[in-house]
Amino acid sequence: MKKRHVLELEPVGIIHSPYKNAGEAPRQNRDSGEISQIEVFEEFAAGLQDIEGFSHIVVIYWFHESQGYQLLVKPPGEDSLHGLFATRSPHRPCPLGLTVVALVAREKNILTVKGLDTIDGTPLLDIKPYLPGVDERPSVKVGWLEGKLGRRSS
Amino acid sequence: MKKRHVLELEPVGIIHSPYKNAGEAPRQNRDSGEISQIEVFEEFAAGLQDIEGFSHIVVIYWFHESQGYQLLVKPPGEDSLHGLFATRSPHRPCPLGLTVVALVAREKNILTVKGLDTIDGTPLLDIKPYLPGVDERPSVKVGWLEGKLGRRSS
Repeated sequence: MKKRHVLELEPVGIIHSPYKNAGEAPRQNRDSGEISQIEVFEEFAAGLQDIEGFSHIVVIYWFHESQGYQLLVKPPGEDSLHGLFATRSPHRPCPLGLTVVALVAREKNILTVKGLDTIDGTPLLDIKPYLPGVDERPSVKVGWLEGKLGRRSS
Repeated sequence: MKKRHVLELEPVGIIHSPYKNAGEAPRQNRDSGEISQIEVFEEFAAGLQDIEGFSHIVVIYWFHESQGYQLLVKPPGEDSLHGLFATRSPHRPCPLGLTVVALVAREKNILTVKGLDTIDGTPLLDIKPYLPGVDERPSVKVGWLEGKLGRRSS
């Protein structure tokens, strides 16, 4: 028998973005360059100390409007099905979103960031510093997405 | 009043690693090059289709042995306190871990990966394809970690 556990997460903030719904938000590999604000709830604000020294941060959030998922999905513009874990679809068993963004400014508990592709009101779960030696890989293969990816500017 | 919600996550797999406890696991910026196995539970295995085309994947997991957190932390080897969100400490309000690893092989629902720094038995929450144009940033500042980071080999 596998031991099954449930992890309960309470958001540490909320994301204010110009995208009011999923239709307005860019696909993750298309950077609109829009500015968003990340509001970290005040009781967690002390945890932001020194964050302004980092040019980029990893933002982890809850795809809170996602309902259900399918294990095989046909991403927009694709003709064939791909395994969910080989896509960045927001509809996942654990609906966790992940975006690396440029940190433009910090004012107290508000971070201004560029390149965050979430919709307005998205619950924030975590922020980590982006570390090139840890988060970046020098050469990669991108499987079914080969030749289909734009590069982001921020 | 802020609306507070709780996100309940049920793991989609389990990580089998050579590190039996936190003392054995490498710090995230020191790649040991060890091999780990990611077991995706069979009911989610169909979601792995096409994953083998990617050389690197993003693994999101639960720091399940983490208990509590402090908003200001002194990372190992550091003399001064830093905000939690400016560190990769496993002790966080939402104890979510994130590692980019090299995908060595897939056999059915078992992924063999290199560079995963979690302890044995860590619950798996999500796998995403690593996309250089999305997850990588060309130039970055790393704040208080400047000059303190090794580079990883995988």
